[in-house]
Amino acid sequence: MTQDKIRGLVVQSGGPTAVINQSLVGILTSAQKHNAHLETVYGARFGLHGVLHENLIDLSHRETQDQWPTLAQTPGAALGSARIKPKAQDTKRLFQVMEAHKIQYLFYIGGNDSAEAALLIGAEATANCYPLRILHIPKTIDNDLMMTHHCPGYGSAANVVAHFALADDLDNQSFQHSIKINVCMGRHAGWLAAASAWAGPHIPQLIYMPEIPFQLSKFVQDVQWSYETYGRATVVVAEGIADHLINGTGLGDQDMDEFGNPSRLSGTGKLGDYLVCAVEKHFHQTLNIRKLRIRSDTWGYIQRTLPNMVSTIDANEAFRLGEAAVTHAVSGISHKMLTLQSQGADVPCDVGLCPLEDVAQKTRLMPRDFINALGNGVTPAFLDYLKPLMDPITPVQMLKEPRLIQKKLPPYQR
Amino acid sequence: MTQDKIRGLVVQSGGPTAVINQSLVGILTSAQKHNAHLETVYGARFGLHGVLHENLIDLSHRETQDQWPTLAQTPGAALGSARIKPKAQDTKRLFQVMEAHKIQYLFYIGGNDSAEAALLIGAEATANCYPLRILHIPKTIDNDLMMTHHCPGYGSAANVVAHFALADDLDNQSFQHSIKINVCMGRHAGWLAAASAWAGPHIPQLIYMPEIPFQLSKFVQDVQWSYETYGRATVVVAEGIADHLINGTGLGDQDMDEFGNPSRLSGTGKLGDYLVCAVEKHFHQTLNIRKLRIRSDTWGYIQRTLPNMVSTIDANEAFRLGEAAVTHAVSGISHKMLTLQSQGADVPCDVGLCPLEDVAQKTRLMPRDFINALGNGVTPAFLDYLKPLMDPITPVQMLKEPRLIQKKLPPYQR
Repeated sequence: MTQDKIRGLVVQSGGPTAVINQSLVGILTSAQKHNAHLETVYGARFGLHGVLHENLIDLSHRETQDQWPTLAQTPGAALGSARIKPKAQDTKRLFQVMEAHKIQYLFYIGGNDSAEAALLIGAEATANCYPLRILHIPKTIDNDLMMTHHCPGYGSAANVVAHFALADDLDNQSFQHSIKINVCMGRHAGWLAAASAWAGPHIPQLIYMPEIPFQLSKFVQDVQWSYETYGRATVVVAEGIADHLINGTGLGDQDMDEFGNPSRLSGTGKLGDYLVCAVEKHFHQTLNIRKLRIRSDTWGYIQRTLPNMVSTIDANEAFRLGEAAVTHAVSGISHKMLTLQSQGADVPCDVGLCPLEDVAQKTRLMPRDFINALGNGVTPAFLDYLKPLMDPITPVQMLKEPRLIQKKLPPYQR
Repeated sequence: MTQDKIRGLVVQSGGPTAVINQSLVGILTSAQKHNAHLETVYGARFGLHGVLHENLIDLSHRETQDQWPTLAQTPGAALGSARIKPKAQDTKRLFQVMEAHKIQYLFYIGGNDSAEAALLIGAEATANCYPLRILHIPKTIDNDLMMTHHCPGYGSAANVVAHFALADDLDNQSFQHSIKINVCMGRHAGWLAAASAWAGPHIPQLIYMPEIPFQLSKFVQDVQWSYETYGRATVVVAEGIADHLINGTGLGDQDMDEFGNPSRLSGTGKLGDYLVCAVEKHFHQTLNIRKLRIRSDTWGYIQRTLPNMVSTIDANEAFRLGEAAVTHAVSGISHKMLTLQSQGADVPCDVGLCPLEDVAQKTRLMPRDFINALGNGVTPAFLDYLKPLMDPITPVQMLKEPRLIQKKLPPYQR
């Protein structure tokens, strides 16, 4: 291969986010500036599938360029995504495809599993002396990657979850004696569930994160406490707490993807229904309180791709990481993940780099001091962490401490 | 009672909406202008419960006035809501409470069931010569009230559903071979499900409304057609289609409220899970297609109270109907519901009046010409109907017709 013929390839992998295409357009914009080194950038249709089956498109093509500005603000993986762990024969094929198409730069936009795939591909490239520069651009609404202050995609999903929690608490406040349980995304870490606390003080009243072993008996006691304290309970649980319940409750029946993740935990109401039953039993049988509205919702996939709730900061950062990936590749850097490094509360994060080994197959859980002592909410330290990522929330307010006017009649029995 | 002591009372009833408090503040603002006739306006805490148990608050109080502007833009029933059908003894008590507090104007903000309650109370007032002026201000995200072009609350919920459908289709497009079924609110009528079509041309690809008898065998054929035509199927079904399935499928187990409505149909994934199973069976067993992602979500209660997705037109109309209710009451009108009367596509609706008898216990279904011939989508006539209620949708666009570059290697078998 001659130096003047180098091509780049972008792969989008794993669950989409609202800003994953910002990173894509960041790469394309930066590649255009480096066109002395980089002839063109290809995109793989549907992740590694696209590379393996040579389903590639030319993203630097002029027709495609006209689409960049709208594409950047479009949630969802524009190239198409997949969840594939490359096997030995797949890696061999990848290099055949890349060689055939003169591809030497591989930009991998993804989460933990993608970091693992990128690490595998990078190691094979080294072992086989393929002249590959591979860079991983983080994206995950789960915010659970090591080595980065936060992950592109998280801020927008956090914004959605905070607004959903606010909406749901307003709905819940509309009814007397109402308990509402919401299941939010987050298999291993509670970052997204925790972000619901951005809705406002004591909204939601209870949050459960998978970092704390979930105990059903404590949960129903907490709900009782909220009911007695606030007259209601608006609850957010991360779907991952199901892992603490999964044995013996009939919550199984998951398909596993190739990384061993249960791929069906979101999208059904199973966990919510189960928790509603437990709360109902406690209030009806133990407390003998029957006049009570108890409901659940599972927020599902819209958490990650709502187009009109994209966080400005999140969009900018995702774009900047895409840009930086190209600059680093051109300057000879490889086998790294791009990171966001905090420079203080009110300063934008710097772009950094870390080895893929430090990210792959690792999960960054919430630190204990971001979760309250009771394990059912967040601390001010977490809200401080979250603050630089978030847009302000819509100001809303139900009636403040409405005072009843004096009664004039004897009580009524219905 | 002397003429200079007349008081008004506001009751919020049924499911909350994003703009129900606009109507409340509309009433309060108008009442202030008519303070020569109307001394003050009370609010009932938690619907008729509040009237029966004398849980009343003074909404004209200066402390409360400061809250009006924020209150108006706050979704959810600020006074608190309930679903109560007044019995004979309840009606008697209502007049005792109203007499004790010098209340002669009753403003009832609600949907079909509230219109029925208002009709009952109005008839009893006439029969008992209680000097009551009762006016019903419509609100329902279901948009299923007779005699009005549309209902306050619907436009905002329609905006939410359109954005959810768009988000979900972007998510769905991110995966190869993906089928996604979304369950949307709407027990009897498909207005809200239909509004998902505002997301864009062919988004979602299929919409099912309760007006058309739901046939599972036709549904799976439609999904297959969408899959073959668009490479995916993003589907929206109104929860009400469950009524067509409910016998013999294990979908029962509903609590009924006092109006005989099943109160548990939203909030669980039952219907979505059921449809996923049916589609899975068809693709796996009948078509022998197994590499397919099939998921469902149930959008739940957030559809009606998202604070940052309120439609401007909806908010204004809800306010205007509240204002008009007071003007009409002061001028001696009673036993009516306020309506919105279309004056043409690009002109704001006029405020009208209709008898409560024409609304109570009736449901306005979608006319047949708003639903396509196949019963799985909407017509241009429906989109014309919807247009004056909607804000424009966020412009987003995935890659347009991406052309694959020429392959250079033999096909790959994984």
